[in-house]
Amino acid sequence: MPRYKLLVEYDGRPYNGFQAQENQPSVQSSLEDAIFKFSGQRLRITTAGRTDTGVHATGQVVTFDLEKEYRPKVVRDAMNAYLMPQPISVVASEIVDDDFSARFSATGRMYLYRIINREGPPALDQGRVWHVKKPLDVEAMASAAQSLLGKHDFTTFRFIGCQAKSPVKTLDIARVKRFGEEVHLVFAARSFLHRQVRSMTGTLVDVGTGRRPVGYVAEALAAADRATCGQVAPPQGLYLTQVTYDAEPNFEKYASIRAE
Amino acid sequence: MPRYKLLVEYDGRPYNGFQAQENQPSVQSSLEDAIFKFSGQRLRITTAGRTDTGVHATGQVVTFDLEKEYRPKVVRDAMNAYLMPQPISVVASEIVDDDFSARFSATGRMYLYRIINREGPPALDQGRVWHVKKPLDVEAMASAAQSLLGKHDFTTFRFIGCQAKSPVKTLDIARVKRFGEEVHLVFAARSFLHRQVRSMTGTLVDVGTGRRPVGYVAEALAAADRATCGQVAPPQGLYLTQVTYDAEPNFEKYASIRAE
Repeated sequence: MPRYKLLVEYDGRPYNGFQAQENQPSVQSSLEDAIFKFSGQRLRITTAGRTDTGVHATGQVVTFDLEKEYRPKVVRDAMNAYLMPQPISVVASEIVDDDFSARFSATGRMYLYRIINREGPPALDQGRVWHVKKPLDVEAMASAAQSLLGKHDFTTFRFIGCQAKSPVKTLDIARVKRFGEEVHLVFAARSFLHRQVRSMTGTLVDVGTGRRPVGYVAEALAAADRATCGQVAPPQGLYLTQVTYDAEPNFEKYASIRAE
Repeated sequence: MPRYKLLVEYDGRPYNGFQAQENQPSVQSSLEDAIFKFSGQRLRITTAGRTDTGVHATGQVVTFDLEKEYRPKVVRDAMNAYLMPQPISVVASEIVDDDFSARFSATGRMYLYRIINREGPPALDQGRVWHVKKPLDVEAMASAAQSLLGKHDFTTFRFIGCQAKSPVKTLDIARVKRFGEEVHLVFAARSFLHRQVRSMTGTLVDVGTGRRPVGYVAEALAAADRATCGQVAPPQGLYLTQVTYDAEPNFEKYASIRAE
């Protein structure tokens, strides 16, 4: 049974998150339905990152086994034909070793958080950016973000319903940069706690608007207390942009969703 | 009566173009309805560029006169409140001289055309890019685009229903550049013929896929014959990004919608 690895892009708006749930639209169910339609197989896919409701992906990775061997591009094109007109696209497809898992083989995950920082609401990017009207001090945010780097107990930035065994994670990249009217935050780690990126982003925005001093982020982290977390950024600005399986995460490539 | 100038962004998908038409959704009608709702005035706005059905704008400009004087940001915020949840946003608002016209004072218009050049269909950018599967030779396209620069009879790249008095226009900028999976074309001129950007873009894509040689664009232009035009690019990749009123168009700023 050949194992397939797919690179998947989706707009999270119409879905109740990635994970399949009874009677709810999900990215997972849509992908599994498309696999069933072309192969006749009902199966469960394995995924690198279970994104929340409304969260997007440009670099999600899934794996699954098919009974019959198809050429990888046949799998890609057949799935895209059955997924249409849903906003889910199989961008690439390949056959991988039997011991490769989208989830357990992953050595790094990278997220981009997009903020539009201007008075007028987004028109072209409704549902795909967080609209922050107050001018953001990006230098203060970038400086505060440095305190999050490295190995820490991230309890402060962990959703109350998080099911991870340990709150200790190692953050490899935490960058904040302005691109015209947009402010992009990029985070990379082997793995993240539930809502960690949105919790860190919201707290950094509290620094950017001047509601909290630059040093607050380090204090909140050290407190290891969820009550010290700032606001939690809404889901629509978040994108899973890259999952790595051996190489180091490539920040430059994913600093912006488009700019390269 | 103070005259207001607005900078407007919109997603062209839900509208039958910019221009108001009986019983059809249009960007113009939506803007005029929003003006009526906060000011009580029924008026006609003047616009810099009447975009076609499905064409987007990040830098559309409109002007109109109000009987009462409001602070510009009150106009912006009131209109945005009434426009919600439509994908139209007033990004900026100012009071201008009585002899200023969004249309007749314009000295330059700039358009961006976005192509996604990969096998998989767009998910996040459905309806906002042209999906071209065949790999594009961007160097060939950029080279062919040079022949369009300057003053020419653009009959070849003019829609049959175009109502301009003369087919002679002067093209100031014609650039083609790759940004990862996207190929962006940027064109600037004092004014354009109807569907000129989409006609030039489609013909350049014929060069990029190898269907036509690099020299074909210059030959088609010289023929001044609509029959020599290549394919016409679809509306969803086109964005009106900037209207200038005295300064030179700033290519670097608008090379990409996001990258700056």
